[in-house]
Amino acid sequence: MSLVNRSCVTIDDLSNGEIEALFSLADKMSDSMNDQSRVCQGKIMASLFFEPSTRTRLSFEAAMLRLGGQVISAVDIGATSLAKGESIADMARVVGSYADIIVIRHPWEGAAKVVADYAGIPVINAGDGGHEHPTQALCDLYTIRKERQTIKGLKIALFGDLKYGRAVHSLTYALARFGAIILFPPSPGLEMPDNVLSKLTTEYKGKLIRLEAPNQEVKGRFFPLDAIYMTPSSSHQLAMLPDISIQIELKKAGIDTLYVIRLQKERHAPTVEGQNLERDYPVVDRKLLKEKEFKRTLVMHPLPRIDELAYELDADPRSMYFKQAAYGVPVRMALIALLLGAKEVMISKEEDSFVQKVDYPIYERDFGVRCLNSNCVSNQETEARYMRPDFRIISLEPLTLRCIYCEHELHPQYIASSDWHEGKLENKKYHSAESHWIRKIKPENLIIFGSENEAQARGFNPSKYVTVDR
Amino acid sequence: MSLVNRSCVTIDDLSNGEIEALFSLADKMSDSMNDQSRVCQGKIMASLFFEPSTRTRLSFEAAMLRLGGQVISAVDIGATSLAKGESIADMARVVGSYADIIVIRHPWEGAAKVVADYAGIPVINAGDGGHEHPTQALCDLYTIRKERQTIKGLKIALFGDLKYGRAVHSLTYALARFGAIILFPPSPGLEMPDNVLSKLTTEYKGKLIRLEAPNQEVKGRFFPLDAIYMTPSSSHQLAMLPDISIQIELKKAGIDTLYVIRLQKERHAPTVEGQNLERDYPVVDRKLLKEKEFKRTLVMHPLPRIDELAYELDADPRSMYFKQAAYGVPVRMALIALLLGAKEVMISKEEDSFVQKVDYPIYERDFGVRCLNSNCVSNQETEARYMRPDFRIISLEPLTLRCIYCEHELHPQYIASSDWHEGKLENKKYHSAESHWIRKIKPENLIIFGSENEAQARGFNPSKYVTVDR
Amino acid sequence: MSLVNRSCVTIDDLSNGEIEALFSLADKMSDSMNDQSRVCQGKIMASLFFEPSTRTRLSFEAAMLRLGGQVISAVDIGATSLAKGESIADMARVVGSYADIIVIRHPWEGAAKVVADYAGIPVINAGDGGHEHPTQALCDLYTIRKERQTIKGLKIALFGDLKYGRAVHSLTYALARFGAIILFPPSPGLEMPDNVLSKLTTEYKGKLIRLEAPNQEVKGRFFPLDAIYMTPSSSHQLAMLPDISIQIELKKAGIDTLYVIRLQKERHAPTVEGQNLERDYPVVDRKLLKEKEFKRTLVMHPLPRIDELAYELDADPRSMYFKQAAYGVPVRMALIALLLGAKEVMISKEEDSFVQKVDYPIYERDFGVRCLNSNCVSNQETEARYMRPDFRIISLEPLTLRCIYCEHELHPQYIASSDWHEGKLENKKYHSAESHWIRKIKPENLIIFGSENEAQARGFNPSKYVTVDR
Repeated sequence: MSLVNRSCVTIDDLSNGEIEALFSLADKMSDSMNDQSRVCQGKIMASLFFEPSTRTRLSFEAAMLRLGGQVISAVDIGATSLAKGESIADMARVVGSYADIIVIRHPWEGAAKVVADYAGIPVINAGDGGHEHPTQALCDLYTIRKERQTIKGLKIALFGDLKYGRAVHSLTYALARFGAIILFPPSPGLEMPDNVLSKLTTEYKGKLIRLEAPNQEVKGRFFPLDAIYMTPSSSHQLAMLPDISIQIELKKAGIDTLYVIRLQKERHAPTVEGQNLERDYPVVDRKLLKEKEFKRTLVMHPLPRIDELAYELDADPRSMYFKQAAYGVPVRMALIALLLGAKEVMISKEEDSFVQKVDYPIYERDFGVRCLNSNCVSNQETEARYMRPDFRIISLEPLTLRCIYCEHELHPQYIASSDWHEGKLENKKYHSAESHWIRKIKPENLIIFGSENEAQARGFNPSKYVTVDR
Repeated sequence: MSLVNRSCVTIDDLSNGEIEALFSLADKMSDSMNDQSRVCQGKIMASLFFEPSTRTRLSFEAAMLRLGGQVISAVDIGATSLAKGESIADMARVVGSYADIIVIRHPWEGAAKVVADYAGIPVINAGDGGHEHPTQALCDLYTIRKERQTIKGLKIALFGDLKYGRAVHSLTYALARFGAIILFPPSPGLEMPDNVLSKLTTEYKGKLIRLEAPNQEVKGRFFPLDAIYMTPSSSHQLAMLPDISIQIELKKAGIDTLYVIRLQKERHAPTVEGQNLERDYPVVDRKLLKEKEFKRTLVMHPLPRIDELAYELDADPRSMYFKQAAYGVPVRMALIALLLGAKEVMISKEEDSFVQKVDYPIYERDFGVRCLNSNCVSNQETEARYMRPDFRIISLEPLTLRCIYCEHELHPQYIASSDWHEGKLENKKYHSAESHWIRKIKPENLIIFGSENEAQARGFNPSKYVTVDR
Repeated sequence: MSLVNRSCVTIDDLSNGEIEALFSLADKMSDSMNDQSRVCQGKIMASLFFEPSTRTRLSFEAAMLRLGGQVISAVDIGATSLAKGESIADMARVVGSYADIIVIRHPWEGAAKVVADYAGIPVINAGDGGHEHPTQALCDLYTIRKERQTIKGLKIALFGDLKYGRAVHSLTYALARFGAIILFPPSPGLEMPDNVLSKLTTEYKGKLIRLEAPNQEVKGRFFPLDAIYMTPSSSHQLAMLPDISIQIELKKAGIDTLYVIRLQKERHAPTVEGQNLERDYPVVDRKLLKEKEFKRTLVMHPLPRIDELAYELDADPRSMYFKQAAYGVPVRMALIALLLGAKEVMISKEEDSFVQKVDYPIYERDFGVRCLNSNCVSNQETEARYMRPDFRIISLEPLTLRCIYCEHELHPQYIASSDWHEGKLENKKYHSAESHWIRKIKPENLIIFGSENEAQARGFNPSKYVTVDR
């Protein structure tokens, strides 16, 4: 099977079977590095980094060069033509006519999707704001699979800043799709964003179990947990236990992987609060890892680390983070080779059937509702010239839209029907999204408003269903 | 014919025949991209960008890599050794000993000529201040020629900031040399610099017709025009018509190319005036292009665009700007291969005979007169250590010098003769450049002063011809 | 002999024989540049520049590309992940898993050693703060040797900022090891650092002769000198002459090389003093070089130059600085090829026997004494997490430690013995380093303190030997 001309913007752009096949190819390439030097001969990768990065960029560039390809790169592009006010779409079209594949890192959420939409060549997202960083997730997954042979059923704790850790968002989706049990230790102020958790339960159909604050007795005996995510394929035995028993059970079985994430200081608002976040940030060190549940735990970290992971662990056989970084090269080699069509892979049907991706309908009207994420690419002045906000309709009750760029969700309050115009001007009314009208307006006629102001600005008047008592 | 070891600092460094041959080579390379991968094997291009740029640099680098060459690049060099106070000449000599060809972009006008003078290897100017950007002009010309087969006799309107658009300066010269009719819509405050217009009429021997403000009736019926440039080879029929008839004639024939240029904000002084420039800047959009004269017009833009070219035109078949960008790679491939001697070309005599380049005498004294362009490389502190201002004497009446670096023209007011010293100290006199002495002083004895102060500082006294009544 | 997997952090990482062999290889590569294009095929060099540089980086990158290798580079890394607080060690381990060889420039002294300690692949120091820049010294040495066939016995004057010129520190060591006579003209406020001079006399066993201020008569007749360094192999005839006769002798024999160094403005504290340094900085120009002693002198400069070396010398046959820069490519090619094991060399025993490197004992306790150089890598917050200061014990009387990272020396004032604990708590005493205890404490028991505070903080009390009358 060929993945040629596909892009990898989110981890969901690759099916489970494709990921497994990519990993086999990475294994093969890793074992015969010197034989890969002609795989992408004559091909050029454009490496466009609108945010500082050494590690990820060098890893991609090394991967392309090891495949015999060449690299053109633009680093720290804040200072260049984009500063002249150019749009991402224009940049993508132009660079798309120079190179054969683009790797893009950008501070705006959804920017990689825009590049993929316009470049005309395969695009790999190397991190777009706090949204996704799928190749980091691939390296993480590859590392776990290499050490444990499978992902299914593993107990994986995500430890640290889940709010802005884009790599951990991609990883969370991947873990869910491959059937891992995800453990969420408390991370006050740094919790996993709602849209990520919501995707886990709606799209991946798993179950998120929130645990009560553990009582005094259990505390100190197990790594504290806020929530556990179980995929549909997980044994539901755990889910049926009371909280304390879950903790005891986990203690006995042990944690398979402790995935540590640094505080994403650069994305946090520079508030007094930030100061506290830094001071109170948890630290993984030799002392913590002496607990029974960490006996066979893989300690992972996407790096760079600051203080959250003690150097004293570097020589510990459980520490995987330097391996994880090193695996970046073969994993990215495999991905690049596949997207360029320089390699093809066999994909077994069975593996691929694990997750049924949900196809939500798209809401395409270019007025009435905007993405509420100020860091979304659709909200940027340079992009507004050509781009309109688009959303997927995730559910009607409650009305839930998901931005197709940044994947943030929103719950607009007002709806109307485009059906009003049949001579009956008085029908140009808007209603509460919670009223029964949400089920009565034909999907093709549905108009959605973020606020009453917007509704009124388009000439709609409030109906009597504009407020609904809950 | 071989172009090996030549440089391309201005568009005039290539003859018409050489440009035609380069375009044929670009066609050939474009058609068989994969066969070019050994043309420049073993060669290194140094890509030195002292100004931010993504597009142009990546285009050059992609071109070199597609030829099988390699690239070393220094970007945003403001921060590097040049900041330590190094001169351009030293940098050129050193990098000239590392690489086989240099591509240079620099904010100072004339900087690329200095690099070419000192590097000892071929140098390509990728933009020097507001002076020239010859490879952009080559891509533009190539695009027009590919769509219309010829340049001769085409009506090409230049639309936008003609003052600081260096690419459009190079393009204007090229269009003149290839016999296009150039249309200048009004661009108040952003007019084509005098030295460019002057070169058109003196060196390229064409005629610039200034049009009267079109009257009410015609206004609105044709794209407004300030001036028309006609090359010696143009039909002079147009030139003999009254203004209104010219406009009617043009309306009928249509404009072949509308070349749009963004406001070069970064070069304009940050004045209140700048604000107005931005607000009043003309916009090319679907509405404008509905006019009859644009029916078959190629819409071009060197990109990046901001607001002057509407996104709604992107899908219009008349829009050429993304093609134009894409052609950058084969055109630059052809140029690099020629200058490195990796390819040779046949040049037909006939094509090459179009323009007779004028060889003006050089004025070489290292005192008395300086270039008045503060952005000229010859006026920079780091360069003054080794460089003296040199000028071409374009005419004596009025006395006109052209800086050999930035090509700005100046009209010094005072002259003297070096002939004074033959024992007659009282002869050490200076005269007005408008006096009859300008014809009487032997060329080899001519001394020129920018001001009376400078003349007196060199020990000259005013003659009675120091003021001339006009 | 293979140098594979070795690093080049200081010039002393290569023996004299290895340097000679490297130069022969550079000669060979220089003569057949086109045949080198497969020597390092498939290898990747990571070029990591944490300080601005064009020249050195491009020279290394051109060298690697001419060998058929590839380059990944990170320039001006201040802005990247290191800014996120990452340590040099982590960066080295990660990049070490992407590339085959690392070239590093860093503002902290000793940083290159840390990279070499952690990367797991060969590392070349391209300048670490004011410490060393060994490949520049290799190019310098290569240039002199090419022009004069040998280094031994040559009279080489170092002219300019010896304080912060890291390249000149490396060069000084190399000249000493190869038996040159080094002349030190006065450079008030910019003198060679004590640790460099100390290494010359202790480790390289030569003799530093300080000259009295030359009297009026001699002044003006010879280039003024502050000191002369003579290696053990130098003829000691000079050393036995009175100062004036030395000067006359030197005048007669002439200076072989005048090595000019620019003011390292960026490393000097921005004081009013800096202003004077700039104004009073010596200038090498045609006038100076008219003196008899410069008749056959090679004029060298590592570039970039500012005002200390006049442009009027560029065409002078004695000027070597552009050759010196050009030699950077073959010399670095040879070094890279050797460290990657792509080439091997024959080393004659005799050549290699010149200097016997001294193996000083290492002092490894992680408390009590710190390097006093605030720019040393061991004193940086990000590095303190994993690194402890380590020192070589250069001498006991006076007690002299040399930091293994930055090689600055320190003379701690207090010592103690770890022998106290055998039940006799009252033995936990500290003494003056100048007391007789320095000879009585067994080396393995020696504890060193930088201050009484530190001693007391570790629970030690002053002994009666805590002050010593000198």
